[in-house]
Amino acid sequence: MTEINLPDVLAEVTEAFRRYEAALTGNDVETLDALFWSSDQVIRYGATENLYGHDEILAFRKARPSKGLDRTLTRTVITTFGRDYATANTEFTRAGIDRIGRQSHTWARLPEGWRIVAAHVSWMEG
Amino acid sequence: MTEINLPDVLAEVTEAFRRYEAALTGNDVETLDALFWSSDQVIRYGATENLYGHDEILAFRKARPSKGLDRTLTRTVITTFGRDYATANTEFTRAGIDRIGRQSHTWARLPEGWRIVAAHVSWMEG
Repeated sequence: MTEINLPDVLAEVTEAFRRYEAALTGNDVETLDALFWSSDQVIRYGATENLYGHDEILAFRKARPSKGLDRTLTRTVITTFGRDYATANTEFTRAGIDRIGRQSHTWARLPEGWRIVAAHVSWMEG
Repeated sequence: MTEINLPDVLAEVTEAFRRYEAALTGNDVETLDALFWSSDQVIRYGATENLYGHDEILAFRKARPSKGLDRTLTRTVITTFGRDYATANTEFTRAGIDRIGRQSHTWARLPEGWRIVAAHVSWMEG
């Protein structure tokens, strides 16, 4: 029986999610890199790119403009399954952009800690 | 230690993924509905909508046009974590649409079977 949202697990993933968000808006590439699974199997679909494996994701981070990263999260939903797996989904908006963004993360507790093993970011179309 | 891609687990999720794809292109709403987690906590971000909970997803399925659903999958990657958790990511194209789609699923083995607990579908922007 999979236990959904065990309080201590939910607290751990929420903390990891907040660390990621702070690193994203602060362009802390080292932390962003550390929180993604260091594997050829990790995938990140972004608004304008599909990235396969740790190396492609890190190269994208390093080339990314470091300005205009602030955003406001809405309807964030984190759900944990058992002790080692979680999803984190959130909508977001950026100042001056009249669209709704969506970010989906799948998190897993690996031997090295909680890591994002798959991510998908996009803008909703009107 | 999380075991990645145990062959029997990978085979199970691959089979569930194929069932979902056949149901999607065949507009088999009953199977689509059955393969999504029957929970208020399930989330599906689509290209043009953000859906929260089983009821919103089912209503969307029922209202969806039943034509033009064929698509071609490319770069499909299914990854399993332990025995009860998996991600399935794929790119797709549709005839007559000059864009690349992306579909991300998080799957969990629940008491009722393998279910999609979160999904995100979008078109990559140029």
